[in-house]
Amino acid sequence: MYLDTFLNKSHAENGLVQPVFAEKLILYSVSGLRCGPFSVIIWDMKQLIDCAMKRAECDLVIRGGRILNVFTGELEEGDVAVKDGVIVGIGSGYPAKTEYDAGGKILIPGLIDAHMHVESTMLTPEEFARLAVPHGTCAIVADPHELVNVCGVEGAEYVHEAFSRLRAGDVSPLDVCLQLPSCVPATPFETSGAVLDARATQEELAKDTFFGLGEMMNYPGVIAGDAQTVAKLEAAQKFGKVADGHAPGVVGDALNAYLCAGIATDHESLSASEIGEKIARGMYVQIRCGSSANNAAVCAPLVTAENFRRFLLCMDDKHAPDLMEHGHIDDALRQLVAFGVSPHRAVCMATKNVAECYAMRGRGAIAPSYVADLAAVDDLTDFHVSAVWKRGTLVAENGEAKFAAAPYLPAAVRNTVHVGEVTAESFRIALDCPRARAMYVRPNELVTEQVIVPVESRGGDVVLTDGLCKLAVVERHFASGNIGLALVKDYGLHGGAIGISVAHDSHNLVVLGDDNAAMASVVRLLKEAGGGMALVGKGIEEVFPLDVAGLMSSASAGQVAGKTAHISALARRMGVKEGYDPFMTLAFLALPVIPHLKLTDKGLFDVDAFSYTSLGVEE
Amino acid sequence: MYLDTFLNKSHAENGLVQPVFAEKLILYSVSGLRCGPFSVIIWDMKQLIDCAMKRAECDLVIRGGRILNVFTGELEEGDVAVKDGVIVGIGSGYPAKTEYDAGGKILIPGLIDAHMHVESTMLTPEEFARLAVPHGTCAIVADPHELVNVCGVEGAEYVHEAFSRLRAGDVSPLDVCLQLPSCVPATPFETSGAVLDARATQEELAKDTFFGLGEMMNYPGVIAGDAQTVAKLEAAQKFGKVADGHAPGVVGDALNAYLCAGIATDHESLSASEIGEKIARGMYVQIRCGSSANNAAVCAPLVTAENFRRFLLCMDDKHAPDLMEHGHIDDALRQLVAFGVSPHRAVCMATKNVAECYAMRGRGAIAPSYVADLAAVDDLTDFHVSAVWKRGTLVAENGEAKFAAAPYLPAAVRNTVHVGEVTAESFRIALDCPRARAMYVRPNELVTEQVIVPVESRGGDVVLTDGLCKLAVVERHFASGNIGLALVKDYGLHGGAIGISVAHDSHNLVVLGDDNAAMASVVRLLKEAGGGMALVGKGIEEVFPLDVAGLMSSASAGQVAGKTAHISALARRMGVKEGYDPFMTLAFLALPVIPHLKLTDKGLFDVDAFSYTSLGVEE
Repeated sequence: MYLDTFLNKSHAENGLVQPVFAEKLILYSVSGLRCGPFSVIIWDMKQLIDCAMKRAECDLVIRGGRILNVFTGELEEGDVAVKDGVIVGIGSGYPAKTEYDAGGKILIPGLIDAHMHVESTMLTPEEFARLAVPHGTCAIVADPHELVNVCGVEGAEYVHEAFSRLRAGDVSPLDVCLQLPSCVPATPFETSGAVLDARATQEELAKDTFFGLGEMMNYPGVIAGDAQTVAKLEAAQKFGKVADGHAPGVVGDALNAYLCAGIATDHESLSASEIGEKIARGMYVQIRCGSSANNAAVCAPLVTAENFRRFLLCMDDKHAPDLMEHGHIDDALRQLVAFGVSPHRAVCMATKNVAECYAMRGRGAIAPSYVADLAAVDDLTDFHVSAVWKRGTLVAENGEAKFAAAPYLPAAVRNTVHVGEVTAESFRIALDCPRARAMYVRPNELVTEQVIVPVESRGGDVVLTDGLCKLAVVERHFASGNIGLALVKDYGLHGGAIGISVAHDSHNLVVLGDDNAAMASVVRLLKEAGGGMALVGKGIEEVFPLDVAGLMSSASAGQVAGKTAHISALARRMGVKEGYDPFMTLAFLALPVIPHLKLTDKGLFDVDAFSYTSLGVEE
Repeated sequence: MYLDTFLNKSHAENGLVQPVFAEKLILYSVSGLRCGPFSVIIWDMKQLIDCAMKRAECDLVIRGGRILNVFTGELEEGDVAVKDGVIVGIGSGYPAKTEYDAGGKILIPGLIDAHMHVESTMLTPEEFARLAVPHGTCAIVADPHELVNVCGVEGAEYVHEAFSRLRAGDVSPLDVCLQLPSCVPATPFETSGAVLDARATQEELAKDTFFGLGEMMNYPGVIAGDAQTVAKLEAAQKFGKVADGHAPGVVGDALNAYLCAGIATDHESLSASEIGEKIARGMYVQIRCGSSANNAAVCAPLVTAENFRRFLLCMDDKHAPDLMEHGHIDDALRQLVAFGVSPHRAVCMATKNVAECYAMRGRGAIAPSYVADLAAVDDLTDFHVSAVWKRGTLVAENGEAKFAAAPYLPAAVRNTVHVGEVTAESFRIALDCPRARAMYVRPNELVTEQVIVPVESRGGDVVLTDGLCKLAVVERHFASGNIGLALVKDYGLHGGAIGISVAHDSHNLVVLGDDNAAMASVVRLLKEAGGGMALVGKGIEEVFPLDVAGLMSSASAGQVAGKTAHISALARRMGVKEGYDPFMTLAFLALPVIPHLKLTDKGLFDVDAFSYTSLGVEE
């Protein structure tokens, strides 16, 4: 029952409501946190009690299911009775408006993704929801880090509004806990589309739009006690909002320092011992089951009876085709169980544990007074989801979402690609050194190695031999004309250029090629399309537009998957080696927080030294 | 570091503070709940980080201890470094102003009593703190139910203020999460000193003084959907405050209904199966280790790897001599471990689990960013506590509290006994029936049986034969003159009368005797003393004053124990049988929520029928 109905019916009736209450109800939520999607819905307690006692008719009863009880780890028989979107009882004999026969399937609480970026799906929020909800997802903790780096806070507001417009009957089919990105820009070494300093962070975190502070990737800043960084985390603490972490390799004193900033979670550990230390120091460890990174195998053996409540599941970054083929958090459950984690503990990691970590009261369990978010699965090994209820409304069945949304594309996220004058000449690399630093990307990883290669220049441009390509990062937010140039070894591409407007975390244009004119054409195509993936060479010009901030497509998931596969196959035909995703690997070559050598629009960057470096090498 | 210091030093420095912040800091606490003792203390995050990185000097380092890690269940070696009352690191090599050698003892997080009534100790709050803190207690969830039933909200404010005045150096040695009593009066069948209706409950719960809503004993009211009762629970939910439960024997539909009211906890289960059901339905079960009631033996075998996070420890009601002899929550740990629960799980029940249940962020673990509340124990079987730190200050050592408090006795809790004109004639029982209902108290229990006894009246008063005594409940709040009269079988007392002003839950005077004049004298003594325990007979007149609201003594714990023992021994010499505590058993004979036959100032009460009944029986 919604706020206004509640106020009219219940409190006004018994004369207890004060005018001030309306505001308070919005400020203080059932979750105990005054933010996110949990703020405005409140129910009539008397109605719930009457339904629990069978004095009144429930809205829904799900019969014939077996309930996975996250408090005990046991499977139990019982009907689940729902009123006003809330579970009122586990039992039998409930009168109800609607009945659903679960036919012996297992009911689990609605799944919660503890950390994800909608942008990495390349889908709009509404299209992502239509894909994820049929897999049992009822809530996500979403960090619109990429959108905000391009569009500023309006990028987050777009996500908020796009999800808010989704309706399945009276309910939103997916609860979205929106984190305010903490690192905009991710580093001062690149040009992003927006800057969110500490003051802006304080102002935005005060708003109900934001559930918490997104992953704090600037762990060196935290550990160094940088004033702006610390002030952002203090704001989160003061507003009682959770701050997420991102701390690869951070252990020992540095981990202690990072935790002193009140950071609750991490999903970036590199080893079992690091994960063990983070658990011991009180972090919640988010087991990431994404497209590029997967920690299920490393984490599963670390789960014990004493610590299993400290693990959460998340996808972080997962592409649409992977979501379509393998699923969402249901896929993570499947993986954990395959690696030997008990189904109960795996399910806890995607339900109750997440709710505990983020203080989402009334979430993550099938029990009286809990929100009626639940999924029916065939078994506890494959976790094939056959039905999903959100606040007691059937929102998906047999893989099909039972909701739709009108397209929503506000001006803030359209036409975001603004580049200066770029010609073939822009990609000339004039070197007067005998050797140069080149980036070598480890296959199937995001880490690059620095290799020193001999180079020869002719006519003011380097000659590309021995598997060398040029890499360019073209600033695309303010048409500043900034272009960073570098060399990449053994990517395999020849006879043209490819480029993409997704480039973590500032999302400038990243272009790889062995032909200056083709590289310029790729920039032109991306500019005209408002961002996307583009390919030029061997007589072909192809572009797949990412018309939402240059990051995501307004097309359907199927179209996105098809077009991505098509243009990737074209790039593969131009020689891109196996072990690299032609475009998505590019998207990480401009990310100056992952070792070792990266390129931004401002120049070549040595991540280990955390400073710019030269392309040419003298000695 | 306190609010003002923080504002001056940190935010003012980097220019980020807004005037509105000062208010926000008080409203939103580090615990995520905007209430209780967690509201006003905030620290300088930069300082903590610098100390964690050993760039700055810590306030305290505890060396040479072994740390019980509640996240992993393991014992680990390491120094605990503290700055501004917060743990900044586990490690080694920290520079510090003060060092403490733990000498190989085990460090556990400060213990938290999840549910207790200070009044049952008969000690003032400050005297209770001096007794409990040396046993490792760093926080309590206290429900001043008895005081508020006598004095109204001023009774709770007294507790709040008395605890607030305690200081060990800069810190409060005990955090007190004060619950607003939910049942004042406990039932409409008796006269209490105050009434807290739904509107008053809403107003009071809005205040920071109150952490949550105290145990909802009126479970029939909840289950029936009584408007006033439901409105109280709705207020708790809306303010994001936890509501505690009290639901003996409530299972099935009734339990579901009770939970729909948002109640989080229970400590009143009667059987293992009931406890199992409550855990499965999502309640936190508080294992009570008190003076009269102890559920450790029943609960211990129910604890599993999957459910141990759902148990909490509490004392509920424990008398001063028991606290002095056996300890507080350390005693509960000892009992749980003796019954086979692993030390790690037992400690979790008194630390991390409580913090999770009540959303006390930063409590219940020894880890960076957690408040430095901890205790050193000799081992994990006896849990003998040798040192206790509160916010990093040593507040107790070798059983001695390192803090004191000036006596605080505001007018609100003094001179609270107001009785009308009472003479020997007031205790005459005129019966014209051949038989009467008498109460028989089961030895070592609070439950009474109804027995039908033959009676004979002479001169307008019943003749006491066959082990009968008279019981009177004399209204003492408003001098209304209300007196309820009944018969008690086989209590053993003869030749006088005894009486007490502690009488759950309305705390009228309860007087038992076989001599009308002696009963009147007992009332006179209690009136003159402002409440207490009194005894008259065989030439003796004795009274032990309970000068704080007629419930507690302003004397020291030792004096309270000694005087209680002395007057109880005198009563025993008047024949009170073993199996009854002469005075404390009386204190429960006026409690109309425990089966089966009870007496209030308004008359004899049939708890099973939940209505008054007659003393005389016709047939």
